[in-house]
Amino acid sequence: MRASHLEDYYQFLRFPSVSTDEAHTDDVAHCAHWLVEKLTAVGLEAKLMPTPGHPVVWAKNKHQPGRKTVMIYGHYDVQPPDPLDLWDSPPFDPVLKNGYVFARGSTDNKGQILAHILGVQETIERDGELPVNLHFIIEGEEEIGSGNLGNFLTQNLEALRCDVVVVSDTGMVARGVPTLSYGLRGVTALEVKITGSKMDLHSGMFGGAVANPITALTQLLATLHDKEGRIAIEGFYDKVKPLEDWEREAWRKLPLDGDKEILGETGSPDLYGEKGYSTLERLWARPTAEINGIGGGYQGPGTKTVIASHAMAKLTFRLVPNQDGPEILELAKKHLRKHLPAGVTMEITDGHSGPWYLTDPHSSVGQAAQRALRDAFSGAEPALIREGGSIPITSQFRTILGVETLLLGLALADCRAHSPNENFPLENFDAGIRLNKAILQELAK
Amino acid sequence: MRASHLEDYYQFLRFPSVSTDEAHTDDVAHCAHWLVEKLTAVGLEAKLMPTPGHPVVWAKNKHQPGRKTVMIYGHYDVQPPDPLDLWDSPPFDPVLKNGYVFARGSTDNKGQILAHILGVQETIERDGELPVNLHFIIEGEEEIGSGNLGNFLTQNLEALRCDVVVVSDTGMVARGVPTLSYGLRGVTALEVKITGSKMDLHSGMFGGAVANPITALTQLLATLHDKEGRIAIEGFYDKVKPLEDWEREAWRKLPLDGDKEILGETGSPDLYGEKGYSTLERLWARPTAEINGIGGGYQGPGTKTVIASHAMAKLTFRLVPNQDGPEILELAKKHLRKHLPAGVTMEITDGHSGPWYLTDPHSSVGQAAQRALRDAFSGAEPALIREGGSIPITSQFRTILGVETLLLGLALADCRAHSPNENFPLENFDAGIRLNKAILQELAK
Repeated sequence: MRASHLEDYYQFLRFPSVSTDEAHTDDVAHCAHWLVEKLTAVGLEAKLMPTPGHPVVWAKNKHQPGRKTVMIYGHYDVQPPDPLDLWDSPPFDPVLKNGYVFARGSTDNKGQILAHILGVQETIERDGELPVNLHFIIEGEEEIGSGNLGNFLTQNLEALRCDVVVVSDTGMVARGVPTLSYGLRGVTALEVKITGSKMDLHSGMFGGAVANPITALTQLLATLHDKEGRIAIEGFYDKVKPLEDWEREAWRKLPLDGDKEILGETGSPDLYGEKGYSTLERLWARPTAEINGIGGGYQGPGTKTVIASHAMAKLTFRLVPNQDGPEILELAKKHLRKHLPAGVTMEITDGHSGPWYLTDPHSSVGQAAQRALRDAFSGAEPALIREGGSIPITSQFRTILGVETLLLGLALADCRAHSPNENFPLENFDAGIRLNKAILQELAK
Repeated sequence: MRASHLEDYYQFLRFPSVSTDEAHTDDVAHCAHWLVEKLTAVGLEAKLMPTPGHPVVWAKNKHQPGRKTVMIYGHYDVQPPDPLDLWDSPPFDPVLKNGYVFARGSTDNKGQILAHILGVQETIERDGELPVNLHFIIEGEEEIGSGNLGNFLTQNLEALRCDVVVVSDTGMVARGVPTLSYGLRGVTALEVKITGSKMDLHSGMFGGAVANPITALTQLLATLHDKEGRIAIEGFYDKVKPLEDWEREAWRKLPLDGDKEILGETGSPDLYGEKGYSTLERLWARPTAEINGIGGGYQGPGTKTVIASHAMAKLTFRLVPNQDGPEILELAKKHLRKHLPAGVTMEITDGHSGPWYLTDPHSSVGQAAQRALRDAFSGAEPALIREGGSIPITSQFRTILGVETLLLGLALADCRAHSPNENFPLENFDAGIRLNKAILQELAK
């Protein structure tokens, strides 16, 4: 590992580029500017493309006719770092411990996209040029749903024509096991607010006379699942594509004890989920309804005998092929309206959404990806998996640009993306640099 | 209204004597010191009595043998003022608008206890002495359950011997209608914390594999009530004393449209509660299970696709005769343990509790109270009611001191005790001063 690579990495991580929080708008912009400077220094033609939200960083080499064109996509925005008190070191002050770099964004996605940039840097330094026509598209809104990237792609369609997209923003099944992800879950979000009285009430003076919005909210949210862990929204599973036999078989043979791994990672007292599916099957190929946040009434120290005026919850649904996000959102809203308890009112706000993705790991570019993965990981056989997370833009690459996406992820299960103490091993950072060099060579063929 | 009375009132209200919040410990102490100075200036012998928590203020006149001894009880601590953004003026900077004083504690309980102090001041100024032996006991822990007052009473039992206790910390059924409250609900509290994973998780990477503690919490709390609004905890109603026919009859005849009043006060879209009881019956004579606060996961702006490590809720139960607080707490915990969803762990913390109170409004002191109320309110006939709130100490006055308590409250339904924009009309402040003078005369007989 070159010292300059690590210094680049640390500089990149120090920007608190939290896209969801308006207080960090300037930090997001500074981070984008830093990327443009870095990509320019590498020898690419780089520029900042404004959007109605955070800007897109676009860099390319000098394109030559007759060569394959590859787009490498990543994002420079990160999730909020809270709860801050659970971090062992400040989230935007990277530290190296036992070969792992700890910082928000270290894995998701700064470490992975920077490895690609540094791979390109090394190839250009060695060969003077790249074997393919290259686009780097690095956006600042992935963590808030990539709301402006589709328009950006559409508006620059001709200039962005390419043969394939490469993304490193997914996981590896185990340390040292290169992994090609051929499927992702989608996501759709909503926020529900339940209101009772116009102000907080004394629970002695009013308790028993009017509905408690927190109670109503818990009763409403408790209707989302049945006792088997299945989602109880009518029609929710109607379009779910059943798992293929070969997938269930391949996943059973992975060098990965999903149950043990996830219990160890999470420290949860037990595994839990929809009956009839293995843990990996539930994670990779079954939809979920999650409550990501809930709040209402008094949450401070001690007791406050209050009936809150309102309570809210933030929900996301992970979607799988062939569910339709807007349709699921409508089904969910219909369910919530149907089960709304008496004595309160409800407001529902739609959040961001993004579709699932599924591609064929045995296509010609899929095979090129498998060769590059073997090359970067000392000949180890790549695992073919799906993933539980969402990269909504993958389906836009297909619908807008008409190309498939290769998901060559470098995240480990214990990377703590979106959580306190997010980390990335330098070993994977190095492998990412090698992977970039190999995949560009393989795709050039 | 004398200008000096209003100035005393404002000074008293400016102390942010929030007993539940350790950050306000000094403010609570300063408020107690101010009271000692005021009571001394009135001509009483006043002192601060330390406790393991906040101090008790104790003041008395020179007692003479052969006279009745009356204890007037009140509290100088207040509820937390949050949510601060819903106050039209700062909670600890009293303002007078249209005859109402707005500030935290204006009604509960600073306005009402100060009216008694000023009544005593006026009687002493006029007569040179009081017609009874008097104790003022003004505590600083009522809003956190009066945890040290029982010990204080026990330790000073002989010195505190009295014939009756007078408390103004309850409500009036309507403006201008003097009200004797002969019953109160009790309260018992607990906090429940549900834990899943050891840290917050990415809902894509882990959603579907492990239980979501917020989902589990909503499922658990949704079991507290059945579809008729009844509490579903086994044995919860076993000891509830049914309403007497005369009470139901008397409450129906009150100059108070409970439904209309409560809808107007609260702005709730509808009334809601246990089937088979009128709104006033539910408020005054039926128990409740309320969720006072809930929190977990991401509550900030935007979306965070996280599965929280833990979630918590604060519960209180309002109790009625003849329910037993500790027994109800055990039944509730048993219920929560029985219904705990799979895949998570639970911790339950007991909160403060206090018993219900019920006395006979037609006893000799009850009749003296009714005469004093008529006197203070221009001859209007007193309403005889119960109340939904809790003053746990009333039952300790009975068990420790062996005396009954007269609840002569001055709070209006729209006083917003425990809520933003708490207020108290100067008209009731004045009536409280007259009431103090009258009740001491009546009890002296």
